[in-house]
This record gives sequence, structure tokens and C-alpha cells, in this order.
Amino acid sequence: MKFRKENGSYLVVLDKGDEVIASLTGLVQQEKLEGGFIRGIGGVSNVTLGFFDLEKKEYSKKQFPGFYELASLVGDISLVDEKPFCHLHAVISDPQMNTFAGHLFFAEISITGEIAITPFNKTQRLFNKDLGLNLIRL
Amino acid sequence: MKFRKENGSYLVVLDKGDEVIASLTGLVQQEKLEGGFIRGIGGVSNVTLGFFDLEKKEYSKKQFPGFYELASLVGDISLVDEKPFCHLHAVISDPQMNTFAGHLFFAEISITGEIAITPFNKTQRLFNKDLGLNLIRL
Amino acid sequence: MKFRKENGSYLVVLDKGDEVIASLTGLVQQEKLEGGFIRGIGGVSNVTLGFFDLEKKEYSKKQFPGFYELASLVGDISLVDEKPFCHLHAVISDPQMNTFAGHLFFAEISITGEIAITPFNKTQRLFNKDLGLNLIRL
Repeated sequence: MKFRKENGSYLVVLDKGDEVIASLTGLVQQEKLEGGFIRGIGGVSNVTLGFFDLEKKEYSKKQFPGFYELASLVGDISLVDEKPFCHLHAVISDPQMNTFAGHLFFAEISITGEIAITPFNKTQRLFNKDLGLNLIRL
Repeated sequence: MKFRKENGSYLVVLDKGDEVIASLTGLVQQEKLEGGFIRGIGGVSNVTLGFFDLEKKEYSKKQFPGFYELASLVGDISLVDEKPFCHLHAVISDPQMNTFAGHLFFAEISITGEIAITPFNKTQRLFNKDLGLNLIRL
Repeated sequence: MKFRKENGSYLVVLDKGDEVIASLTGLVQQEKLEGGFIRGIGGVSNVTLGFFDLEKKEYSKKQFPGFYELASLVGDISLVDEKPFCHLHAVISDPQMNTFAGHLFFAEISITGEIAITPFNKTQRLFNKDLGLNLIRL
């Protein structure tokens, strides 16, 4: 992972082998970001996507081994118990251009990740008992 | 819906039960925004997506009852006859991570909506007779 | 294509018949942009999407004749050998709201393209022999 800061924003390039969530969370920690918005594209492999089951109050997960275009990566940065958290949703596509999407749990960069981050002020995420997950509290 | 304004941008959090289009249009009206760009993610239900039929010059619509991840929400803010209009396209995904996408007409928040708005200057949308819908006139 | 520059950003409106990649690359050249981030929506036809085959080190391409909603357009601007290059990934949807996605090679505007560009500083893309394509070098 390499990044460049300019005019308050970040251009981030993830390299082959980098894991998307871990890399971005590491950058957030290193740069002491406390909020922000993320968007990007790339090429990924070994993707794990999630769908939040409101009855079970937990994510069901599905693994996508193999290679995918990362057609869209959108999400945000917040703090959970003062620790950085990147909430990202991804749309991926296979060699037939068929698409899959969901909450991004894991994705290894297979080619590159080209990502922009716009920092926001401190944004905290607190546990919501009714829904069973952490939500941004403004 | 709650929102925070900072450095000219907005971080918007939609709550369970909020309808996406109505909530964002209400915010645009309240904040007197006359243009802007929107992007976000979330969890939604009872989604109505549209596809513009160029021959009939109208949208065909399809309803998606049940719960979906809002994998991508992208669009813009403009004025039609001085009234605020949010033009949004959405990509949603089901529990098998299969995706559907189109022009967003309606979506209830089932979990949360995490949305960023960057205001632009006054942007007007005028009716285009040839195509049969309102287009941004720069 | 028409565009408006404000606060350092661009609001771009593509017209019926404009080709997305050629139009945006032309704008980048005209405005002497050397980097930046792009996102947008629209309605398109005659779309060509690509999937990078890491073994063959080349894109496999698939054509999508007919009309599609451009549900998401995300990407960036860089220079390759000092020439402007727009790297864009697209998610498109058909009348049944089924989606396809990938690296965008070609798309004619059928209705409109509503696109925002945030310029970045000079961003260069260099050939990576191992992967077989040009990657951003920070």
C-alpha cells in the first residue's frame, strides 16, 4: 500500500497481495483519521461478502474464491470504542461480467486497488441492541 | 435522519424506517441545497427500481420486497421548476449476494443509510421533449 | 458534453451520442488535468466491459448491445506517458434490473451522463511487467 495526501484527501494505491480491509484500517490508524468517506475500484481475489440477517442479528457470509473486478467500493470510516472501523460495501464481477455485492469482509488485491479517501471529523459508531450491530451516532 | 455539516459537505445517517428519496429530498429542501453529488451505502427493504424505456418514454418499475444490502447509492441534486430533485441510482444485493440495480424510486431503510453529500452550485433540470424526461442543463 | 467548474471540482453532463471514455478523456486533456477521481450515473447503450485475465495478461471483453442504466461509474484520472487516461469501472443494469459490471471500454450515452470529477495532483501510471498492465505509481 502506498498513499499520497493532498488538499486534505488521500489517494491510496493497494498492491497485489494487500488485503483491502486490513490495509485501509491500518492507514486510518496510522493517519489518525476519525471519520471519512471511501470510494474506489480495483482487481481482487478471495473475496468474502456479507448480508446482514435482521432476524439472526448477524451477517451471513459467502466466499468468492478466484479473481474478480472490484467494480465499486463505497464506504466510510468511523470509530468503534475509539478504534478505527472501515465500513465498506463492494460490487464485484466475474469473467462473464456477472456481479455480486454486499458488505465487504475480506478481499485480497490481485491487480491493484485505486481508492480515494475524504476525511470527516470524528464519527462514532455505537452498538444498537435492537438491530444487533454498530451504527453511526451523530 | 440525522446529519452533520462540515467543511461544506454533509454526512447523513438515515434511520430504520426512513425512506431514502423522501429523506434526502427533505434534507436538500431544509438546507436549501441547489445542487450536489450524493454517494452512500446501507441496508434497505421494499425497494422500487426503474429502467427508463426510451421508446415508451417512461420508466418501467420493479419492486423488490424483502431486505437488501444497499451496495452502492450514487447520484446528484438538482432543481426541477425550483423544487429539489434527487436523482439516484442504486445497486442492491440479496442474501445470496446476487445484485439488482437501476434508477431508485423508493427504498425503506431497514438497518441504516450512511451517505455523503457534496453541495454544488445551482443546477437546473429541464424537460427534454425528445427523450421524455428532465435533464441537467448546464 | 458540457461541464461546469466550481470550487476546483467539475460537474460534467454527457449528451445522447457521446461516448463516455472518449468524452471524459477529451475533457481531461482540454482542462489539463493530471489526476483525479470520477463518479457518476446515467443511461447508456452499446457497452463494452472488460475483465482482466491475469494468466493471459489481457482483458477479455464482452459487448452489451441495447440500452442499460449506468448504475455506477467509478474511477480515476492519471497520465500514461504524459497522456491522459481515465480508468473507469461500471455497473450497468437491464430492463429486468439485472446487473453486469467490469472495466469500462466503451459506452454510448443513450439518455444522459451525470458525472463529478475531483482533480488530484499529477498521478502517473507505469507499465508493470509482472501483471501486464499500467498501474498508478505513487
